[in-house]
Amino acid sequence: MRHILKRVSLLFFFYFLFHNFFAQDIIVGHKLDFHSTILDENRTLWVSLPQSYQDSLCAPAFYPVMYLLDPAFHFHSMIAVREALTGGLYNYMPEMIIVGIVNNDRSRDMTPTNSSVIHSGKKIHETSGGAAHFLQFIEKELIPFVDRSYRTNGYRILNGHSFGGLFALYALQERPTCFNSYVVHDPSIWWDDRSIYKSALLLKDTIDLQGRCLYLSMAYNQTKEKDRYRHSQSILAYKNEVLEAFANRGLRYHFEYLSKENHGTIFLPASYNSVRYIYDGICLPVKEIPIRPALLMEHYRQVSDSICFKIEPPEGLVKKIADYCVLREELASAEKLLLLNIYNYPNSAYSYQALGELYIKMNKLQLAKEKFQEARSLYPQIDIPELLK
Amino acid sequence: MRHILKRVSLLFFFYFLFHNFFAQDIIVGHKLDFHSTILDENRTLWVSLPQSYQDSLCAPAFYPVMYLLDPAFHFHSMIAVREALTGGLYNYMPEMIIVGIVNNDRSRDMTPTNSSVIHSGKKIHETSGGAAHFLQFIEKELIPFVDRSYRTNGYRILNGHSFGGLFALYALQERPTCFNSYVVHDPSIWWDDRSIYKSALLLKDTIDLQGRCLYLSMAYNQTKEKDRYRHSQSILAYKNEVLEAFANRGLRYHFEYLSKENHGTIFLPASYNSVRYIYDGICLPVKEIPIRPALLMEHYRQVSDSICFKIEPPEGLVKKIADYCVLREELASAEKLLLLNIYNYPNSAYSYQALGELYIKMNKLQLAKEKFQEARSLYPQIDIPELLK
Repeated sequence: MRHILKRVSLLFFFYFLFHNFFAQDIIVGHKLDFHSTILDENRTLWVSLPQSYQDSLCAPAFYPVMYLLDPAFHFHSMIAVREALTGGLYNYMPEMIIVGIVNNDRSRDMTPTNSSVIHSGKKIHETSGGAAHFLQFIEKELIPFVDRSYRTNGYRILNGHSFGGLFALYALQERPTCFNSYVVHDPSIWWDDRSIYKSALLLKDTIDLQGRCLYLSMAYNQTKEKDRYRHSQSILAYKNEVLEAFANRGLRYHFEYLSKENHGTIFLPASYNSVRYIYDGICLPVKEIPIRPALLMEHYRQVSDSICFKIEPPEGLVKKIADYCVLREELASAEKLLLLNIYNYPNSAYSYQALGELYIKMNKLQLAKEKFQEARSLYPQIDIPELLK
Repeated sequence: MRHILKRVSLLFFFYFLFHNFFAQDIIVGHKLDFHSTILDENRTLWVSLPQSYQDSLCAPAFYPVMYLLDPAFHFHSMIAVREALTGGLYNYMPEMIIVGIVNNDRSRDMTPTNSSVIHSGKKIHETSGGAAHFLQFIEKELIPFVDRSYRTNGYRILNGHSFGGLFALYALQERPTCFNSYVVHDPSIWWDDRSIYKSALLLKDTIDLQGRCLYLSMAYNQTKEKDRYRHSQSILAYKNEVLEAFANRGLRYHFEYLSKENHGTIFLPASYNSVRYIYDGICLPVKEIPIRPALLMEHYRQVSDSICFKIEPPEGLVKKIADYCVLREELASAEKLLLLNIYNYPNSAYSYQALGELYIKMNKLQLAKEKFQEARSLYPQIDIPELLK
């Protein structure tokens, strides 16, 4: 027995060693199971946290969440968009959490009405019509679960393609406040004789879409099948009649026809364009800030106004820009930025420490000492430099 | 001792359980260390294998490799491009292995000549000029290592941005046969008074670029710093004078100006466009194949001609299209496709089994039995259906 145990533990030891030191996996997220009482079934989520999520230097940050439909197809695309547009000094979107909702019964969950279609001689989509139920699950169970499990800031985006786009349009009209932004790619508006278009038109004089944002993309569709459903025509009708009316009800929207993409390829380029549209103007005028640091706050106020949601400058980003000011020898500007960080993140030892380090550079040793002491009172492991002792 | 061992093994057991069942990581690749004798240092690679790489049903497949510079910035983008354009019936590129070469000393490795630049009052790039050495490492050590370690088919792409683009252009002119395609984004042609442009012009009447392909992107660059180096002007000069001349020496190339992207954002959209250009026309006319299955081989012959590299239709894809033929009730076409798979992959038990299953559907039981027996002779675990016993 002892012999066997020894072998087993050795085995695990080597697995462990191998796992951690040799085959260093590149991990982009995790899968987790989640029971829904409303749907009476288990659902699987694919979650990807932004790189700074585990950053132990800054105060714990809070993030927007993108809820992504059909993650089996689109999860890697969304991760790429986030990684390509964040990090460094130039950020074209805030870092965000991506939550992919894996399908159990796609046509059931994504379609607002029951209808069936004959495809290659077979009746398909027979379980359709469950969108109301699925939306209830998202609103009452999933969002609260995600908000409990992760540090979220309350800004939510829903991203869906094809049937997923149909569902996102349904969510927009049924629960407009459930998400701040809706990203909709080449949606199946043709579904059930354009039922979504018809029901949307009924709301055009009453719906309140203040503060909501929609990005709608359309692909080049010339296949016979798409023609049969008048796929593109139904998207254009929705855009021309529904979205024009919804804009009068407060919706900020952008429609884009991607002539080089088809239904199968549109997701990645259009998702990239969608976040650039939603967060248009968020990228800081980095080179001007060392000269006029107040620009940073003005900039965030403007962006907050335009997306109708208050966003604070992230501590890590402001620190990087302060470092850039130091490089440009604009120490007074760096000081202003680090003071802003302390104001926004009063419990971050890191912000005090960074300012302490700057004061050493500025030869303001008494101030430096005070900042280091404040940093230590928040996080006792921080060392006070010899110079200040 | 026995007690401790028991505890340790329990610990590992729970780690193992937890690792595999609860926190299911989403893994896109692995990091590995590799010693270079030429560079006399360790290099880290980030490797991502395509989804079908571990597919145990098909015969082991062989893949093109993309060598990617600056993977810390661009690895997720390339994975997204691959995942978005492969899988399913419509494939806009072949599945490929991505090998990211992590930087040790970026300006040393990427620059063909030694030169230094004054930036914010400091001298930078002092170690520059090591591109010849780095290219030797790639050609003599890295490519052989990758070809030994993974199932590669000999088609290679080099993808570089900025300084990485400068290096890719250097590789193109110094070792044109090292890669089949070169993907170059907003390259630093300004480096050392356009030394790459000057050295390229000297080769314009002698270099042999038959069968080589280049995609060159340029971003909108209006910052003062880029102006100072005449960044865009140098790219345009290279395009107008060098690439025009190189085209006469056999180079197939495409230049694209992405007016909505800047130096920092160009990589993802331009890399997406680059593979669509390199493999232009590879996507099969899926809906026509059930009617005329010979189209499939004709199509691959044409694509092979246009990329100057013979590519075989992947077994898994052909099987999927055969399934689609069955759905369309074109059984004779499905049979032709599965026979093609047996011809191309004579050691794949799966191809025989798939054909056996088709023959059952066609009620050709004697043929079905033969195919199942052939499948079993290659892979004894395959069960012969009751019907055929």
